[in-house]
Amino acid sequence: MSKIVMKFGGTSIATTDKIKHVATRISKEKAAGHEIVVVVSAMGKTTDELVRLANEISENPSKREMDMLLSTGEQVTMALLAIQLNQLGHEAISLTGWQAGLQTDLVHRNARIEKLDAKNILNLLSDNKIVIVAGFQGVSADGQITTLGRGGSDTTAVAIAASIEADVCDVYTDVDGIYTSDPRFVPTARKLDELEYDEMLELANLGAGVLSPRAVEFAKNHKIPLRVRSSYNEGIGTVLKGEVDLENNLVVRGVAFEADIVRLTMEYEVPFNDSLAKIFTTLAANHINVDIIVQSIVDGKKPTVSFSIKKEWLAETITVLESNKEALGFTFADFEVGLAKVSIVGSGMVSNPGVAAQMFDRLQKESIPVKMVSTSEIKVSVVIPQDDMIRAANALHDEFGLALV
Amino acid sequence: MSKIVMKFGGTSIATTDKIKHVATRISKEKAAGHEIVVVVSAMGKTTDELVRLANEISENPSKREMDMLLSTGEQVTMALLAIQLNQLGHEAISLTGWQAGLQTDLVHRNARIEKLDAKNILNLLSDNKIVIVAGFQGVSADGQITTLGRGGSDTTAVAIAASIEADVCDVYTDVDGIYTSDPRFVPTARKLDELEYDEMLELANLGAGVLSPRAVEFAKNHKIPLRVRSSYNEGIGTVLKGEVDLENNLVVRGVAFEADIVRLTMEYEVPFNDSLAKIFTTLAANHINVDIIVQSIVDGKKPTVSFSIKKEWLAETITVLESNKEALGFTFADFEVGLAKVSIVGSGMVSNPGVAAQMFDRLQKESIPVKMVSTSEIKVSVVIPQDDMIRAANALHDEFGLALV
Repeated sequence: MSKIVMKFGGTSIATTDKIKHVATRISKEKAAGHEIVVVVSAMGKTTDELVRLANEISENPSKREMDMLLSTGEQVTMALLAIQLNQLGHEAISLTGWQAGLQTDLVHRNARIEKLDAKNILNLLSDNKIVIVAGFQGVSADGQITTLGRGGSDTTAVAIAASIEADVCDVYTDVDGIYTSDPRFVPTARKLDELEYDEMLELANLGAGVLSPRAVEFAKNHKIPLRVRSSYNEGIGTVLKGEVDLENNLVVRGVAFEADIVRLTMEYEVPFNDSLAKIFTTLAANHINVDIIVQSIVDGKKPTVSFSIKKEWLAETITVLESNKEALGFTFADFEVGLAKVSIVGSGMVSNPGVAAQMFDRLQKESIPVKMVSTSEIKVSVVIPQDDMIRAANALHDEFGLALV
Repeated sequence: MSKIVMKFGGTSIATTDKIKHVATRISKEKAAGHEIVVVVSAMGKTTDELVRLANEISENPSKREMDMLLSTGEQVTMALLAIQLNQLGHEAISLTGWQAGLQTDLVHRNARIEKLDAKNILNLLSDNKIVIVAGFQGVSADGQITTLGRGGSDTTAVAIAASIEADVCDVYTDVDGIYTSDPRFVPTARKLDELEYDEMLELANLGAGVLSPRAVEFAKNHKIPLRVRSSYNEGIGTVLKGEVDLENNLVVRGVAFEADIVRLTMEYEVPFNDSLAKIFTTLAANHINVDIIVQSIVDGKKPTVSFSIKKEWLAETITVLESNKEALGFTFADFEVGLAKVSIVGSGMVSNPGVAAQMFDRLQKESIPVKMVSTSEIKVSVVIPQDDMIRAANALHDEFGLALV
């Protein structure tokens, strides 16, 4: 008998028919004698619909009230799923974030888990119940409802897996597992059987979209075996673990890409002193995630700093920069939209110099201009024009031998 | 400066435009310097839609899970209303049932309020905030989400009014106030300026539909001035109080009617002993509300007992009776559908004998057969064929001089 956390995302439970299908899947695991905790997202487009309602009222609704609003989505799903599991003869019980003991900080819409008191869940499991927990939501120490932000249900699942010491955390999705690239845009992409947490972290951070980076980080830190599986078939999916054998001696394990990137550039009259730190401290304090940062100090030119963000953060970023212009000390700020990021990822890179050079070489052959570069031990990212994104991804996928043979 | 509780029902807040309208109304009261607590229901048909989803899955969903599901409805409304009030420049904050301190027993879908710890609400009011509370929902002592059943948002409003010692509790609805009868079916019905709690209680219990009887009872016990007002105009509506002058010397103050009544009849081989008590104890234990009870013991005939219930309870009532048939000691059970109840109400009746006789006389003149009768000090109810309901209501409204002059 194992303890299993099963997480189902919005597309897997978009209709009552899909909820019935998911319940049958859960029922099988229960019949195999496992203790089951299920984590659910909101049904299909529910969250979008709720955001649309709020935007009919205000362009900038209070984040606290948005959490109140959005947290209803998972509550609907979990109740319907519990009803269906009861219908199948199981004892199922649903829990909101606060009932499940998931405590967060007070950063509405982007809260972080502070602790998870699993007492309630463990008691219900020992009563032979299937426990269904609302993903994405928690409660602050002073009783405010919070949400965890993008991919929050994955994080909920992994946090529960850690706190109940689950044997595995299965994240069910509408894809078979993690692919070398997004098969919708890179036709030769193929599924990976195994992937390292760190590689997945880079892929997730780079917008591969299947798993939330916070969830992967949590799983890595707590050594939770994490599987990405399809809701629609019985395949084993992709297993995330600490170390993976070099599959087919591949140095690069995946190509990720992400559209809607904006580059902001700021110019200074005088050389940087502490202003660089000030900018990014200010942005962080406003919960704006900055991705690639490039600074340039060339003799005879004014020093500049550029950084990339997601387009959705642009308005807020500009507001923050403008209102702190004097304190931050820059004299000019510009931004370029219509950009995308393409990255290659693989833990084998660290021992293979020349991977970045090979990447740049191929992009040059494809006549794709590189606007920004960022490297880590296991990935190289470039910012390029968005119009070239898919072509670049396919070219790099081919360049590093990832194509399905 | 007064403390005011304002309650808005589903039709008053069915769309974001209506929510904006309601917010403007609240804004006016706030501008007048009052401390405001708002209680909201779910938007329009939200609850019906959630019930429909559950019924796609199960005909008999778990009541606990239905509470989880349905309690999301008010949470959506209160967040949207808070966003709109913020938009208008007010500090507004929404609270779920548990955040508002509303504790109930554990009877899911029909919970009763056990206590209301108003500390949180009072603190927020003293911070100059408009406090918006989800109606209809609470939390049990052990942390289960519950709902209060039909009309529960009214009860929430009155309970909050009592616990914060509000000066008045205004229930906003889509009608101008309480009418002598339902103007949709009785064209000569007119609005009453004042009504006694007890009269309203009888009208509410008889299905007048504007206010929940539990709310009226609560208001009566705690002497909360309760006003029924229109969301769409500034009229003062109908004020409920302890004693009202006989308006135009009317003995009968209102005519109420309710469709979808079922009469169940049980026959016994032997005279009743304790079986009568047993039946109604058993039904009460299953939370089935029985309305009129008539027993008949005639020499030479087998003893019978008849009682009326709402049609929606029929399936459950039959299940309960069948599964307890032996213990309850009856030998035959039958039921008649297609019935309705029509009632006349007025606290003046107690000192005016002959009101019931006048009612029966008029019904006989109209050739409307009376199937069951029930009387109290301030009302007389008859069960008649549903097809005759509207005609009976109009006839009695005319008979007792209630028509608009």
